[in-house]
Amino acid sequence: MYVSTVSSLRLTARFGTALACAAAMAAATAGPVEDANKKLVLDFHQIVLNGGDVEAAPNYVANSYVQHNPKVPDGLAGLQGIVRELRKGAPDAHSVVKHVVAEGDLVVLHSHTQRNAQDRGMAQVDIFRVRGGKIVEHWDVIQPIPETSVNTNTMF
Amino acid sequence: MYVSTVSSLRLTARFGTALACAAAMAAATAGPVEDANKKLVLDFHQIVLNGGDVEAAPNYVANSYVQHNPKVPDGLAGLQGIVRELRKGAPDAHSVVKHVVAEGDLVVLHSHTQRNAQDRGMAQVDIFRVRGGKIVEHWDVIQPIPETSVNTNTMF
Repeated sequence: MYVSTVSSLRLTARFGTALACAAAMAAATAGPVEDANKKLVLDFHQIVLNGGDVEAAPNYVANSYVQHNPKVPDGLAGLQGIVRELRKGAPDAHSVVKHVVAEGDLVVLHSHTQRNAQDRGMAQVDIFRVRGGKIVEHWDVIQPIPETSVNTNTMF
Repeated sequence: MYVSTVSSLRLTARFGTALACAAAMAAATAGPVEDANKKLVLDFHQIVLNGGDVEAAPNYVANSYVQHNPKVPDGLAGLQGIVRELRKGAPDAHSVVKHVVAEGDLVVLHSHTQRNAQDRGMAQVDIFRVRGGKIVEHWDVIQPIPETSVNTNTMF
């Protein structure tokens, strides 16, 4: 990526902006928008979801938060309520992010969530939409990890 | 990376081009690598998974395919076996992709999968790793859609 970018920049001096920019963009993966969105979502995951700091949630989540998890009401208040409830039921619950994929205003987290250290846990994907520096929409898919597998790769 | 790129731009081209390129890259979302990976994965989804054309699978999937779904054996043959089995058990099964998110060598599909038109179905996320023009690794998380929800947004 770095080499391609530098090469395309050398083109700039000789062949003009359009070609050089096209080559530079061709080498791009995540841009600064995606990087900022990832940081917001990972901070939210660490501080609010793992840390249980529901008072910090407004720093990351819009009041109008659209919720697609069928067990959680819409809005910032709905999110804070479920985090309080989950932390009360499982104070040692913890989620480890295994993959982060971002494009445009969407950030995907693929995670392993456990209620405690003995729990086999759940495989989970959360998709967040970020706009104006806040998370405005959320989808998730959650599956208990089975006891056995026909391959040796784990679910992560 | 972004800082490095901008620095290189400033060092390499000392005129207005650098700023124009930096602005263009800042606006970039998916690049052509991600676009090509998305096309490969969506074609695979449509032709092999929805279409049941297991003979076409080698056009999309590497022999060494690493499988993280705990019910499916590793490799191209493992994939072909499960597609045959699923199509036999539910010949009208169909999956509709709701979101596609790609970054680097990963492509994420968020989908609604139904065994038939009457089935409430499953929410599903598949993550594919693409290398050398083939899918080389796959993870998924699958959840039955519940009958009721506390919000009106659906799981998609």
